[in-house]
Amino acid sequence: MSAIPEQFLSDTAKVDAASIQPFPNSRKIYVQGSRADIRVPMREIALTDTLTESGAEHNPPLTVYDTSGPYTDPEVNIDIRKGLPDVRSAWVAERGDTEQLPEQTSEYGRLRAADKSLEALRFTHYNHTPRRARPGRNVTQMHYARQGIITPEMEFVAIRENMRLELYREQLASQHRGNPRGASLPANITPEFVRDEIARGRAIIPANINHPELEPMIIGRNFLVKINGNLGNSAVASSIEEEVAKMTWGIRWGSDTIMDLSTGKNIHETREWIIRNSPVPIGTVPIYQALEKVGGKAEELSWEIFRDTLIEQAEQGVDYFTIHAGVLLRHIPLTAKRVTGIVSRGGSILAKWCLAHHQENFLYTHFEDICEIMKAYDVSFSLGDGLRPGCIADANDAAQFGELEVLGELTKIAWKHEVQTIIEGPGHVPMHLIKENMDKQLECCDEAPFYTLGPLTTDIAPGYDHITSGIGAAMIGWYGCAMLCYVTPKEHLGLPNRDDVKEGIIAYKIAAHAADLAKGHPGAQVRDDAMSKARFEFRWEDQFAIGLDPDRAREYHDETLPKEAHKVAHFCSMCGPSFCSMKITQEVRDYARQQGLSEQEALRKGMEEKSVEFVRQGGNIYPKA
Amino acid sequence: MSAIPEQFLSDTAKVDAASIQPFPNSRKIYVQGSRADIRVPMREIALTDTLTESGAEHNPPLTVYDTSGPYTDPEVNIDIRKGLPDVRSAWVAERGDTEQLPEQTSEYGRLRAADKSLEALRFTHYNHTPRRARPGRNVTQMHYARQGIITPEMEFVAIRENMRLELYREQLASQHRGNPRGASLPANITPEFVRDEIARGRAIIPANINHPELEPMIIGRNFLVKINGNLGNSAVASSIEEEVAKMTWGIRWGSDTIMDLSTGKNIHETREWIIRNSPVPIGTVPIYQALEKVGGKAEELSWEIFRDTLIEQAEQGVDYFTIHAGVLLRHIPLTAKRVTGIVSRGGSILAKWCLAHHQENFLYTHFEDICEIMKAYDVSFSLGDGLRPGCIADANDAAQFGELEVLGELTKIAWKHEVQTIIEGPGHVPMHLIKENMDKQLECCDEAPFYTLGPLTTDIAPGYDHITSGIGAAMIGWYGCAMLCYVTPKEHLGLPNRDDVKEGIIAYKIAAHAADLAKGHPGAQVRDDAMSKARFEFRWEDQFAIGLDPDRAREYHDETLPKEAHKVAHFCSMCGPSFCSMKITQEVRDYARQQGLSEQEALRKGMEEKSVEFVRQGGNIYPKA
Repeated sequence: MSAIPEQFLSDTAKVDAASIQPFPNSRKIYVQGSRADIRVPMREIALTDTLTESGAEHNPPLTVYDTSGPYTDPEVNIDIRKGLPDVRSAWVAERGDTEQLPEQTSEYGRLRAADKSLEALRFTHYNHTPRRARPGRNVTQMHYARQGIITPEMEFVAIRENMRLELYREQLASQHRGNPRGASLPANITPEFVRDEIARGRAIIPANINHPELEPMIIGRNFLVKINGNLGNSAVASSIEEEVAKMTWGIRWGSDTIMDLSTGKNIHETREWIIRNSPVPIGTVPIYQALEKVGGKAEELSWEIFRDTLIEQAEQGVDYFTIHAGVLLRHIPLTAKRVTGIVSRGGSILAKWCLAHHQENFLYTHFEDICEIMKAYDVSFSLGDGLRPGCIADANDAAQFGELEVLGELTKIAWKHEVQTIIEGPGHVPMHLIKENMDKQLECCDEAPFYTLGPLTTDIAPGYDHITSGIGAAMIGWYGCAMLCYVTPKEHLGLPNRDDVKEGIIAYKIAAHAADLAKGHPGAQVRDDAMSKARFEFRWEDQFAIGLDPDRAREYHDETLPKEAHKVAHFCSMCGPSFCSMKITQEVRDYARQQGLSEQEALRKGMEEKSVEFVRQGGNIYPKA
Repeated sequence: MSAIPEQFLSDTAKVDAASIQPFPNSRKIYVQGSRADIRVPMREIALTDTLTESGAEHNPPLTVYDTSGPYTDPEVNIDIRKGLPDVRSAWVAERGDTEQLPEQTSEYGRLRAADKSLEALRFTHYNHTPRRARPGRNVTQMHYARQGIITPEMEFVAIRENMRLELYREQLASQHRGNPRGASLPANITPEFVRDEIARGRAIIPANINHPELEPMIIGRNFLVKINGNLGNSAVASSIEEEVAKMTWGIRWGSDTIMDLSTGKNIHETREWIIRNSPVPIGTVPIYQALEKVGGKAEELSWEIFRDTLIEQAEQGVDYFTIHAGVLLRHIPLTAKRVTGIVSRGGSILAKWCLAHHQENFLYTHFEDICEIMKAYDVSFSLGDGLRPGCIADANDAAQFGELEVLGELTKIAWKHEVQTIIEGPGHVPMHLIKENMDKQLECCDEAPFYTLGPLTTDIAPGYDHITSGIGAAMIGWYGCAMLCYVTPKEHLGLPNRDDVKEGIIAYKIAAHAADLAKGHPGAQVRDDAMSKARFEFRWEDQFAIGLDPDRAREYHDETLPKEAHKVAHFCSMCGPSFCSMKITQEVRDYARQQGLSEQEALRKGMEEKSVEFVRQGGNIYPKA
């Protein structure tokens, strides 16, 4: 056991080498807010000039949202034994409503801390004890928002969502000449707008006071659509070092939050390593760990064990908890005739408990007790959909919607306690039934943000469920879903490896961005337009850099046209030089330019001119060559 | 040059080894129609029994649509030098309205035939001369349909679309207990319905009289959504043998039609090999070859050369032609301010011709002449969208919709000649603008089938455009698009290899099937339900066999759980045995069964019983282990 940290560090160092590479032609920038310690990270992509006959035209750099954290900042010395730099401690401390505890207060956490055999596994650099709200105080972002307070976290996310859109107004206006959709430029997102959306419950900033390494982000349908990536060891495979590496790998490619779904050994210690090294919110499903504590026997779960688990994880810094409090006794018979029954792990655990005890779900009966814990640390609810459909045949059925109605009741209770809340959704849903899910969620849960897994739009493609679900995810994102939980190609088949995690994340970045475009999110199209302009102008290096995955774009391009000279080729490999439509269009434009006219005038003039008669070769169509 | 056929055959034999493997647990079946020579191929997947405490329950075999042709039939001796067995010659001949020509009538075809240097390249087994309509006769399926004639081709596709749904009625009804959407079972598709849809122009059967190897299929929005896969060599890369192998590979994975977009050398001979070995319709863009014939100089194209090219290809057996007759002079200035101008190869070639000559597009001015050729061979129109948008910024603009309106006019002219017609569509379209495309196409083109490329829902993910476009394809398929032209991961970057072709096709099979589910196509959900039942019952081998890609599903499963014993494991690798929700659900059901009660009664009864009090362990939550 004592050999593990060495292994861990060498393995992780290797993995980090990939995760800390800056992206091509990119640099990390920080946009400063109203105070020096609000520094919002973004990625700036330098673009090359457009070459025209009249000289070079400058293309301004492109700013993109950046989830990769300090890992892609060459100025930051990454040492995962020490964790990430502190972003938020001062903000939390200066509010004066929290206290540093003398030690952690969960019984389990204290048992683990006292266990000498675990020392080799432990993250040791972080020597603070946890913070908690002072008695009677509520430290949630929702509480502050309702008080009219704009926190540094709120200002941070407002700056972050804007992606320096103000730099692109002219460019946008110019690129959209003739395209009416570009005519009205969108408003900036202001800190006050963020505050108002959080107060209203329409958005959350998952930000546990014990996660000072966090770069705050917002989840709500009036903001950029977010994606979540899962990681987690299980009894069958995987280990601590792999999970930490998956996290840094996941955020590199764009995961906005990470859920740690570990169910194997040492999940307490694994989680500590992940949180201390995570710039994004971490979510968990505490019932998984609670079940481990009772030897995997669902019927032996108790409120006491669950409560201690919540406190244990809240004091480590988990930012949101999936709580399956909507699975009620009366719903269980509704699942009996389903094709795939109950497919949520949490849902099935609680159904089993309910049946064994013939009692109502203890998460439901203790819901207000849970709220008390959540608001003492600002852990957000992700109200779990334990009865989500596991196949097309079971979509939108009575069990699913019965639970959703209960989640609506619970949302109101959570809001009474000013606990931030999002709602989890399905699952497997054919396209024509997706919108009903979104509409019903908004209605039942009073516009609390929706957070869905996919949905998968067909069951018949194991090995490709990032695609079956990417379709549904894009659609529900457009309809108003705030966050999309990714699905990897290994869904239903096995545990995802690094490649699978990346495939899943890119598929979901596509879904989220397609949804942002369709929703008309301010500035979403700036990146598409930059890509398309680079494409039209054969600026290959810029195309690679602007894309979601520069490595793959370059690799695919090089397979057909490997030479460096081809990176500036004015044709692409698909059609060859004389069939390239973009080249021909360019020739048409150049022809106009040579005549010293604007393009439209040239085209009009040209058409009025009488043409030189085309010399046909009579019946002899094919001249002898 | 003379060495090529040997190379060709050895290479192809190697590739065919993969393409002729039967699918796991599957056999080729033929459903016979009203006469002995109507034998409709399908794939039947044998399923294993469900094991219950009361014994084995039989799962009936699953029938799925099969595009793979004779290649997956072990009874057929595949020899690509001889081409595929004849399916349709007798049907064509017995109609008595065609004649066998003494020789091919295109000038180019005769020049190639006379060129001794090409002998090594030539497909030689097919020793028939082409067929053509007898003077004054119209041999299109639309013509017959309007005469009230049900052709063998129409009966063939009716049987094919039904996929033996009658075998699953009971199963469907049983699986859908409690699910109201399964209550009304759909009607069979009848030959008369097929005839009526074709007469109305709402569907086509692309079936050139010179393509007797064809297994007929139908394209129309009241049928299964179809997909097209492209292949084609270009000046930069690729060769004959690769293209034939791509075709057999493409249809193996589900391509319903293949477009041969070759622009390189020897395209006449390549095409002959492809058609003689293709059980699916072959489409081409004749302007590409015409351009080759004038040395790549668009301005030197002429109606005479184009006309000869149409005849050349029609006499080889091409089933549909993309004709960019809607690109008019007045549209070209509308593209000048676009971000990416004209991106269709055909569109840009014709725009260049129009500008060079200051004349109207000769495909438009000669459209009725083209109709005369089409109806003499039953080649279908695929009216090309030469002005489709090449990026999000250009979607649904005046140029695109201006051309679509012209395509509507041309559809009416084609129908006047009783030429079967589909309409090509975009391209790059954000999600919120997709439905407008479909609605406008149905309106302008009087419900002629729509055939779209994607559309891609964002521009920012080169390397993943099978996904960006799969999203749009699924949506437009749901909205009513009849055929989806696939996009591979290499789109915008390079030429697709075998893996890319497969990735693209599977992504599009997913999109098409998701659309069929959403449209409520009769029987589409049978396959999903079979998969989900197998999943719930941990019948792993059945899950692999039912899926779109059995090879990948098995490979992914084996990465985590490689042992044979795991193929019957009652848990999967993601959660491990004690966290498996399906296992827990099964336990809940088994518990009920042990009590000798129906599940619903057991659950109700259980809840009424007083439970044995759960023994809590007081303050000592965690017993010392």
